[in-house]
Amino acid sequence: MNQHLVAGTFLHVLDLVGTFVFALSGAAAGVKHRLDLFGVLVLSFVAANFGGITRDVLIGAVPPAAIADWRYVAVSVLAGVITFRQPVVIERLRSPVLMLDAAGLSLFAVAGTLKAQAFHLGPVAAPLLGMLTGIGGGLVRDVLVSDVPAVFRAEIYALAALAGSMVVVIGESLNWPNWLVAVAGAVLCFGLRMVSIRRGWRLPVAGTPDR
Amino acid sequence: MNQHLVAGTFLHVLDLVGTFVFALSGAAAGVKHRLDLFGVLVLSFVAANFGGITRDVLIGAVPPAAIADWRYVAVSVLAGVITFRQPVVIERLRSPVLMLDAAGLSLFAVAGTLKAQAFHLGPVAAPLLGMLTGIGGGLVRDVLVSDVPAVFRAEIYALAALAGSMVVVIGESLNWPNWLVAVAGAVLCFGLRMVSIRRGWRLPVAGTPDR
Amino acid sequence: MNQHLVAGTFLHVLDLVGTFVFALSGAAAGVKHRLDLFGVLVLSFVAANFGGITRDVLIGAVPPAAIADWRYVAVSVLAGVITFRQPVVIERLRSPVLMLDAAGLSLFAVAGTLKAQAFHLGPVAAPLLGMLTGIGGGLVRDVLVSDVPAVFRAEIYALAALAGSMVVVIGESLNWPNWLVAVAGAVLCFGLRMVSIRRGWRLPVAGTPDR
Repeated sequence: MNQHLVAGTFLHVLDLVGTFVFALSGAAAGVKHRLDLFGVLVLSFVAANFGGITRDVLIGAVPPAAIADWRYVAVSVLAGVITFRQPVVIERLRSPVLMLDAAGLSLFAVAGTLKAQAFHLGPVAAPLLGMLTGIGGGLVRDVLVSDVPAVFRAEIYALAALAGSMVVVIGESLNWPNWLVAVAGAVLCFGLRMVSIRRGWRLPVAGTPDR
Repeated sequence: MNQHLVAGTFLHVLDLVGTFVFALSGAAAGVKHRLDLFGVLVLSFVAANFGGITRDVLIGAVPPAAIADWRYVAVSVLAGVITFRQPVVIERLRSPVLMLDAAGLSLFAVAGTLKAQAFHLGPVAAPLLGMLTGIGGGLVRDVLVSDVPAVFRAEIYALAALAGSMVVVIGESLNWPNWLVAVAGAVLCFGLRMVSIRRGWRLPVAGTPDR
Repeated sequence: MNQHLVAGTFLHVLDLVGTFVFALSGAAAGVKHRLDLFGVLVLSFVAANFGGITRDVLIGAVPPAAIADWRYVAVSVLAGVITFRQPVVIERLRSPVLMLDAAGLSLFAVAGTLKAQAFHLGPVAAPLLGMLTGIGGGLVRDVLVSDVPAVFRAEIYALAALAGSMVVVIGESLNWPNWLVAVAGAVLCFGLRMVSIRRGWRLPVAGTPDR
């Protein structure tokens, strides 16, 4: 049933939208660091798919969907080429991209949690894998260009993904219908993320002087 | 039999102690780099569990124990929260932490080798996986905060893990009792590590001028 | 039949030659960054084997050949020790190494694609995994020493691997004999790489000002 939901048209479309948006973020990082066309495409693919690939390896779903299904590759390459040719356009889109990025994060967290549950992961492991699906790509994107991952410094980001993932687990255990589980998790994650951007919410930093 | 040994109470307790200590090291790195609370918790978890997760993926034991068993998550989070709230205490503990860290390294090397053997890895692969279990977490911890991994520059560290792991393989091939194999491997690793810290033993560096 | 080809003596020898050459590149990076002997050996092993290990994990061929087969470890360590003791010799060899490196890239791309096909990966996934086998090791080598991966900045490199990998897929689908598939893929990759080095061909970089 979860399998069915994940495979459903609604989620599949949103999944590819999320892939596209995350690929844009990877390509933008590549352009900013003056990588060549190939480097930009690699960062597009990694940012969009690393989280899902890692989840699939950890739950034993190999080969991972992001590699076995050509659509993920195609969407990632498309986003990379667009960004490479029109980097200025992407910069102008910053605000919509932030919103789409939050949408992608929300969907990846929900879909990742559902897939982990479909592979019989428990109530601690499944939300962790959902969060990982959401944040993994951006994390490796930043490592590849030698930055400390932005997720470590941003407004509430991974926590929003974790919250959405946990709603999925709670909803499933209460036998909510699948669509409600997915919508509730995604809306909570998306809402938390957008509000924290708008209000500049941040998690506390330990109170030690620099270094 | 190996499975039984690894699952035994003695090793399980030590395993969680090792997890806790490595999680402290990850959290301390996060605090030092001024990450927020979530970043500190992620580094805790990664430093404590990445080595074991990689081992489990490489030997096909998915989902990895560190994800499927909630105790690893709980211990990692606990260490992260303590470090985040009381970073000064952790700094004062530096010397005990070094000793506990060596204990964790020793246990992870032994437990990792035993688990690899239980999954039918051979006498070259099993100690490599044991060493990887010991050093993997710290290595990724350093990559995530954009440092060259300390294991590359430290006193005898990975070599101690490798030595302990090889003792396990040799002892098993000589049909030593399991408890003796585990103790001998752990004591050798721990001893090598502590002596090398005290005496400042280091491996040679190639004799080229800087860059 | 693919399995047979990959296992064949000709390809196995070339595979180990490729491993040796990539291990030299990893060791040279370690010496340049003043790592100790162990660090140099780790970078040797990682540069030579990370691509293949990742491919094997993604297609479900665990434990990966590079860990389960002691020859890969032995060849990697040998290259590391040679480089560590005679770094000057390696520097003098720069031009032959570039050529051998291109040979290694070509073989890894071909062998990686064939192995992926033997595990039933499709015509999009198989060349991606072939390319990954060729470039993965160098990529992680650079991340571990905190560089932006050279593959992102070099002359045509990953693209050559992808072209060779795609020839393998096309040739197989046309029922070419296996030896012809392998030779055609490797020659195309090797030729593209060598010509691009000689002529300084590079992929375009997006036309934005620095940062």
